[in-house]
Amino acid sequence: MSVTFAQGFSAAGVAAGISSVAGKKDLALVVNNGPLDAAAGVFTSNRFCAAPVQWSRHAVADGHIKAVILNSGGANACTGKPGYEQSRTTAETVASLVGADADDIAVCSTGLIGELLPLDHVLAGARAAHDALASTAEAGADASHAIMTTDTKPKTVTLEGKAGWRIGGMVKGSGMIAPQLATMLCVITTDAVVSAGQLQAALNAGVDTSFNRIDVDGCMSTNDTVLLLASGASGVEPDPDEFNALVASACASLARQIIGDGEGASHDIRITVTGATTEDAALACGRAVAASNLLKCAISGNDPNWGRIVSSLGTVPPDVAPYDATKVTVDVNGVRICENGGAGRDRSEVDMTPREVHIDIDLNAGDAEATVWTDDLTHEYVHINADYES
Amino acid sequence: MSVTFAQGFSAAGVAAGISSVAGKKDLALVVNNGPLDAAAGVFTSNRFCAAPVQWSRHAVADGHIKAVILNSGGANACTGKPGYEQSRTTAETVASLVGADADDIAVCSTGLIGELLPLDHVLAGARAAHDALASTAEAGADASHAIMTTDTKPKTVTLEGKAGWRIGGMVKGSGMIAPQLATMLCVITTDAVVSAGQLQAALNAGVDTSFNRIDVDGCMSTNDTVLLLASGASGVEPDPDEFNALVASACASLARQIIGDGEGASHDIRITVTGATTEDAALACGRAVAASNLLKCAISGNDPNWGRIVSSLGTVPPDVAPYDATKVTVDVNGVRICENGGAGRDRSEVDMTPREVHIDIDLNAGDAEATVWTDDLTHEYVHINADYES
Repeated sequence: MSVTFAQGFSAAGVAAGISSVAGKKDLALVVNNGPLDAAAGVFTSNRFCAAPVQWSRHAVADGHIKAVILNSGGANACTGKPGYEQSRTTAETVASLVGADADDIAVCSTGLIGELLPLDHVLAGARAAHDALASTAEAGADASHAIMTTDTKPKTVTLEGKAGWRIGGMVKGSGMIAPQLATMLCVITTDAVVSAGQLQAALNAGVDTSFNRIDVDGCMSTNDTVLLLASGASGVEPDPDEFNALVASACASLARQIIGDGEGASHDIRITVTGATTEDAALACGRAVAASNLLKCAISGNDPNWGRIVSSLGTVPPDVAPYDATKVTVDVNGVRICENGGAGRDRSEVDMTPREVHIDIDLNAGDAEATVWTDDLTHEYVHINADYES
Repeated sequence: MSVTFAQGFSAAGVAAGISSVAGKKDLALVVNNGPLDAAAGVFTSNRFCAAPVQWSRHAVADGHIKAVILNSGGANACTGKPGYEQSRTTAETVASLVGADADDIAVCSTGLIGELLPLDHVLAGARAAHDALASTAEAGADASHAIMTTDTKPKTVTLEGKAGWRIGGMVKGSGMIAPQLATMLCVITTDAVVSAGQLQAALNAGVDTSFNRIDVDGCMSTNDTVLLLASGASGVEPDPDEFNALVASACASLARQIIGDGEGASHDIRITVTGATTEDAALACGRAVAASNLLKCAISGNDPNWGRIVSSLGTVPPDVAPYDATKVTVDVNGVRICENGGAGRDRSEVDMTPREVHIDIDLNAGDAEATVWTDDLTHEYVHINADYES
């Protein structure tokens, strides 16, 4: 379903021969059939950002995007001017197919860094995808499959506003996931009647509390792109607060699905820090804990090792997060195994069998809180990233 | 040999029944027999620093340490006042054995966080170690074995100054290794005639370019301690520059040995960043690359994946390290596989069979440089930290 759930969008996913996996769907096209073509985007802050990111950042700057072409099988990152020309040529080809300016076409790529794309396959794939465009649930599903790399399942979202307008979305991402942003390509569509400015504000807020709060492996990608497109096809002008809330929900759902499909993960870990002096302080503490390889290994071994939680917490400078180490409590799956910075209930009381692990840290220093998500670190993660070229 | 290589020091390592591994040597004693008892220390900056760190930081503050007692098998961290009392009682016991004030005894512990030590075993072990004290090479070796946890081999250093004075040292550390500091206990001895002030200055400088530039897993410990003790037994006042250089060499050797024994590591990775505007800029870039799980997995799979190097480099903010992404080069084991921020020579040309991997990054932005060391990330690292309680 994904992006075609919102009215006014058609999509396709085809096997274009870009991926090294023969027959894998590797090229997706999403077209906004209007009447509006408002759009907003958020991109990686990596200084080695990929050619398609450079292109799309420019394309979305005026608030208008007519279509998005996305490929897996190659990131087109660190490819210099030839790479940028590939993104431009791809956009021009799609523009001529859908009857738009090249500047209204966004381009997204994901895969190995440092190699040019097989451009002939990309352009032929664009034509095939254009021929296959449909507004059906199946077409949306095809698109969500075509952007997968090490993902083991497609990740999509559908939400409906009170007055009948809709949001649809898809995302890919499994490894190279770190805050600011997660390594991922994401397209969210809506048929609400909203301006580009509204879209950008809603997207910034939604990304900030979702994709910017997940961390699979602390590695920031060169290609992260999140696009939000509005067709206005529902004819409904949504309540602004409801609109913002639903965009945030869509982002949160997709981010949660990335964690649920983190490379090799056997546990999804929610870390909530309460009792902080500010939200930023809570976030800094949560991120420090989420980044601990030792904790992530312990969780994969079903060991609620609170020593590795507090030792990570202890690396956050006092000026960033003021708290008294002797007043900190840590609950894992509801059992307070660390009390006043020391041992609490026995950790053997913690049931670690559920896939989802809840770590609740109370700094007892204030009223602010934040939640971040991460995955455990498993043999399978090492296997995926040591033994495969990706 | 280790700490007994310098004249004026005796040592012992005994099995005190602290470790869960029956019969393992787990308690070491190092005594400075003078005539001097000058000392300096550097400690973890972790806010959950362990009881022995709190004790020893206080003990070394006046520049005098007569003896150091070290145990593996338990970190005595996050153990509150009872833990601090254990460190105090241990120091008092050693003090009465060696005829000193408790304030002149340093205490170091390493092992699981959050549990008190079996104090009876520690105190009985202290007496047994005192009985076994000797200035022999074997006694020094015993001490270096007794502080090991997941270490697979003891790590020691011996250096000799021109005028006949000496430095000896031992360190433990294998996991929970991150800059500021590495997770480790380290005792360095010298028979040079030097003041506590000289010792502290030499140690600060030595640690800054060694233990603070290694990173096994980005996890900072609660127990890191580096002590430098001077007996003055050689009667030689060394040239200050030579003294500083030899202390730095001892730190560098021990830090390098930690990397060589990193948990589960199959490659030791040297990352040198040149062409930076400042040393701090070079260091920030080196640390960002050293922290990449994805790169560390790639290296364990013998894949010189430069995309993962530059994508990590790209996360360093421009105000921290100014450089132009299109001018960066990366050599792995001498082969320039990234040129001007894009693909260079084919990565199949890189010989990845040596254990030591050299990554040389030229930012082409200035004249400053820095080197950091890390390990690769292997199945064995996950196994050690998921499947064992440590």
